[in-house]
Amino acid sequence: MTTESLPRRPAAKGGSTLRRYLPILDWGASYSRTLFGHDLLAAVIVTVMLIPQSLAYAMLAGLPPEAGLYASMLPLVAYAIFGTSRTLAVGPVAVVSLMTASSVGAIAASGTADYASAALLLALLSGLMLLAIGLFRLGFLANFLSHPVISGFITASGIIIAASQLKHILGIQAQGSNLASLLASMAGHIGETNLWTFAIGAGAIAFLFWVRLGLKPLLTAWGASPRAADIVAKTAPVLLILVTTALAWWFHLDQRGVHIVAEIPQALPPFALPPLDLSLIEQLWLPALLISIIGFVESVSVAQTLAAKRRQRIHPDQELIGLGAANIAASVSGGFPVTGGFARSVVNFDAGAETPAAGAFTAIGILVAALLLTPFLYYLPQATLAATIIVAVLSLVDLGALKRTWAYSRADFAAMAATILLTLGFGVEVGVVTGVAVSIVLHLWRTSRPHCAVVGVIPGTEHFRNINRHEVETSDRLITLRIDESLYFPNARFLEDRISELVAENPKVENLVLMCPAVNHIDASALESLEAINRSLKDAGVTFSLSEVKGPVMDRLKRTHFLDELTGKIYRSQIEAYRALA
Amino acid sequence: MTTESLPRRPAAKGGSTLRRYLPILDWGASYSRTLFGHDLLAAVIVTVMLIPQSLAYAMLAGLPPEAGLYASMLPLVAYAIFGTSRTLAVGPVAVVSLMTASSVGAIAASGTADYASAALLLALLSGLMLLAIGLFRLGFLANFLSHPVISGFITASGIIIAASQLKHILGIQAQGSNLASLLASMAGHIGETNLWTFAIGAGAIAFLFWVRLGLKPLLTAWGASPRAADIVAKTAPVLLILVTTALAWWFHLDQRGVHIVAEIPQALPPFALPPLDLSLIEQLWLPALLISIIGFVESVSVAQTLAAKRRQRIHPDQELIGLGAANIAASVSGGFPVTGGFARSVVNFDAGAETPAAGAFTAIGILVAALLLTPFLYYLPQATLAATIIVAVLSLVDLGALKRTWAYSRADFAAMAATILLTLGFGVEVGVVTGVAVSIVLHLWRTSRPHCAVVGVIPGTEHFRNINRHEVETSDRLITLRIDESLYFPNARFLEDRISELVAENPKVENLVLMCPAVNHIDASALESLEAINRSLKDAGVTFSLSEVKGPVMDRLKRTHFLDELTGKIYRSQIEAYRALA
Repeated sequence: MTTESLPRRPAAKGGSTLRRYLPILDWGASYSRTLFGHDLLAAVIVTVMLIPQSLAYAMLAGLPPEAGLYASMLPLVAYAIFGTSRTLAVGPVAVVSLMTASSVGAIAASGTADYASAALLLALLSGLMLLAIGLFRLGFLANFLSHPVISGFITASGIIIAASQLKHILGIQAQGSNLASLLASMAGHIGETNLWTFAIGAGAIAFLFWVRLGLKPLLTAWGASPRAADIVAKTAPVLLILVTTALAWWFHLDQRGVHIVAEIPQALPPFALPPLDLSLIEQLWLPALLISIIGFVESVSVAQTLAAKRRQRIHPDQELIGLGAANIAASVSGGFPVTGGFARSVVNFDAGAETPAAGAFTAIGILVAALLLTPFLYYLPQATLAATIIVAVLSLVDLGALKRTWAYSRADFAAMAATILLTLGFGVEVGVVTGVAVSIVLHLWRTSRPHCAVVGVIPGTEHFRNINRHEVETSDRLITLRIDESLYFPNARFLEDRISELVAENPKVENLVLMCPAVNHIDASALESLEAINRSLKDAGVTFSLSEVKGPVMDRLKRTHFLDELTGKIYRSQIEAYRALA
Repeated sequence: MTTESLPRRPAAKGGSTLRRYLPILDWGASYSRTLFGHDLLAAVIVTVMLIPQSLAYAMLAGLPPEAGLYASMLPLVAYAIFGTSRTLAVGPVAVVSLMTASSVGAIAASGTADYASAALLLALLSGLMLLAIGLFRLGFLANFLSHPVISGFITASGIIIAASQLKHILGIQAQGSNLASLLASMAGHIGETNLWTFAIGAGAIAFLFWVRLGLKPLLTAWGASPRAADIVAKTAPVLLILVTTALAWWFHLDQRGVHIVAEIPQALPPFALPPLDLSLIEQLWLPALLISIIGFVESVSVAQTLAAKRRQRIHPDQELIGLGAANIAASVSGGFPVTGGFARSVVNFDAGAETPAAGAFTAIGILVAALLLTPFLYYLPQATLAATIIVAVLSLVDLGALKRTWAYSRADFAAMAATILLTLGFGVEVGVVTGVAVSIVLHLWRTSRPHCAVVGVIPGTEHFRNINRHEVETSDRLITLRIDESLYFPNARFLEDRISELVAENPKVENLVLMCPAVNHIDASALESLEAINRSLKDAGVTFSLSEVKGPVMDRLKRTHFLDELTGKIYRSQIEAYRALA
């Protein structure tokens, strides 16, 4: 049952570093005709789903539609070579496209050449950062984005994206860097609504909701499996595109004020390096870092969820390299930042994809579409794309999570609510930066206060317990403080504070013992604190001892002068200390 | 013995919030003639020591000498009102002056009005930040600057400061943003050395070293107490100033190329708000934050060390408010950033200061000096001030710490060495930012890997121990993982990884128990992970149970759906779980 899972540490087991960095060597070696059949079928279905998505997310990112197609070719091939998930479908996704629009929009006007090249540079920076984080094995840093913060950020982004697309549904102009200004701007232009556009947009939204809420149950009732019904529902946007494009062409809706996609170049992606402009890099490095982190966190949870279902494993550090390679590929082939998409990966998985080759086949499918089908998309109304975006992102909005989190933990609720409000009020960058900062500060605060307890002996035993919770025996001459965590710089000062408080409160005390059964590590800062504690207890006429120090910690202490200067002793067990000092 | 210590939580005990924020109400109420006598004597000695220091540190900060005097008046009064240390002597200090020169020097040329007003703004920003950190009780954040990083930073700063003053000793022009460029620039101009200047500078250094190394032992041998000898040695710079000023005046050395201090305005500090220029604020907020943190960390350790000697206590959050008030005072009275100084506080303590009133008296002493003595300082050679700086900062340089830290911990050594090299190579801001980042990343890395162990039962007992360290009994059907830390977002994913690894490695396993005797808290992210673990174990046909869950943790879990969905059970004790599942 573990045969399918990738080895955890291939370098150590197989001796091949190459295999670790090129997972394709692993699954490629045993690639078979059967696997090919499964992968190809999944690729066809994902391609059909990806065409409208790639056009729509390019529009969301403020880029021409072909950028979406380009972002769905080479990046998929790069991920297939370097990624460790068998079923992750990489490409443009809603939240990253929004973040792209937000950061690049601050530098250049949408539609200009500067805008497009800034998006390429953003993808390059993000790719290089992901690569660096992966190579230096810093993937653990993503753990410090707490779940409530991510969940709040995704919800707020979904709301912003949906709001930003409403203007395309109404056929009006509107701009705003946050939700309030966007809505205000739309309210100001609502009189200019184009009814043809609105008819198409509203109709498209209604259709897509019907597919999701009405068609899927219907298909299931007709005997389709839930998976098949789901896949059919996910390809409904293609039908919508066909119908609305035909309508726009037939009725010449473009002459009635309906914005259409118009010319998409029928060409291979334009291979070129993005402009390496230092002042641009200075403006884009932070957004690139945020996009990298958010993209990685989202992608890795999808990948992990899907891998677990088949008892496969993914390797977060190598995933970073895979996503990094995908973004670098996007940057040299006319795309924009990409990552693993949730809905798309689930479809890929359900459609039976077995290896990352399915991604490469999808890329070929998109290439064929770009070369052959783009003329047919000339009359595609932008309102149709906006409708697909709105319906897709509303599933990201999970306001129920606020309620669930409130019930479980007020602190986590506060972090989530703050992230949502800040993202809505000040935009995605402020939202995610604050979210990360809040998560880390909360964590630092928690670890700066180690769990510790003053203990006494349970009469007639050798057990020591918290004096506030148990009936224990203590002595005026002795205070024993049990510390339940390793001692390191964040909690070192807390210990100094706690001990000076204890000594100030207990005038009769002559001996203080620090009981260390849970101390796995004492770092240089904590050693410095222990020395300071020893000195000030000495000035106060109190001896300082330790008990139950673990072997490795003791070995390390022996390399210092601390033990020579210690006014008390090191006791093997607390009961020995108690008998000697109480 | 605890009567002298300030109450720890006066608000809670005395019901007076005012007293918490105004420690002066505490000690001021019982102020007596005896205390006044002690404080006054200490103030006179500190004033004599502070006059040359304030002139010298103003020069180091790139400001005119009067700025140093102004920074030693009102800030001391503000700290006396708001600070909690009885003996801390606030004012300009070497490292903060260097940081001021480094950040303000990037904005304006030394000697211009823009330079001086940027220094005022820097003090204001730093004061407001300290105040905010104190009011929001975020002082714990300073704990995340590990000891090796601070120690390395101070050592490197001392080297840079000494090198930067060499040009004044030689009487040449030299500039450089890091040690290498500074030394290179000096080497290029060494031919322009002014011999008169060099004679004074080198003579002054030799004299000061003799005082430290020769005079102190001599005085002690003549029967002076070590404390008295130390105080005399600390006032030696004043003698040096008298002699070298007289020499410069007598021989008209200013006409022979010796730079002198020249006109110092004989005036009260210029009270005015610093310029509130937004673009300046944007450039200065980060340096201000760094200065705040470094200043606070340095000051609080001095204050804590001195307080412990007399069994007094300081309150870090209120200290932040005190230092914030001092910096705001500096900013509205023509000064620059200040903090508690080490050498000066020790002298204050040793000279018998009893309350912060000593600081206020020192301020009056400096005011008198500014009004009456400044004409006599006209001919004071800058080389004399440079010599006092060099001798003072060389005591900050502690390269031996590198060796001690290497012996104790390689990781801490790496952090220290990196901070030293980066500070020397790229300047103080890069050095301290990197140091903070390295400290925090190291901490995050450590806490993202909680201590945990697979355990088995010791035959014939109910005790469970690590299977790698003890002879224990286990079962193929059951894996028990004991987790030795609270579960929260930084380590939540690690747990998911570890469990999926265990299940992949043990094909026969049917039950997995997470033993939680040390889990004090499960946050929302970790709950999410437990749910994910439960789901993927279910897909893999393994039940998931918990054992020895603490009461408060259990209460919280009961508010969620987790217990309903759990495939296994919650066992009160691990032995029950073992008997049921093994």
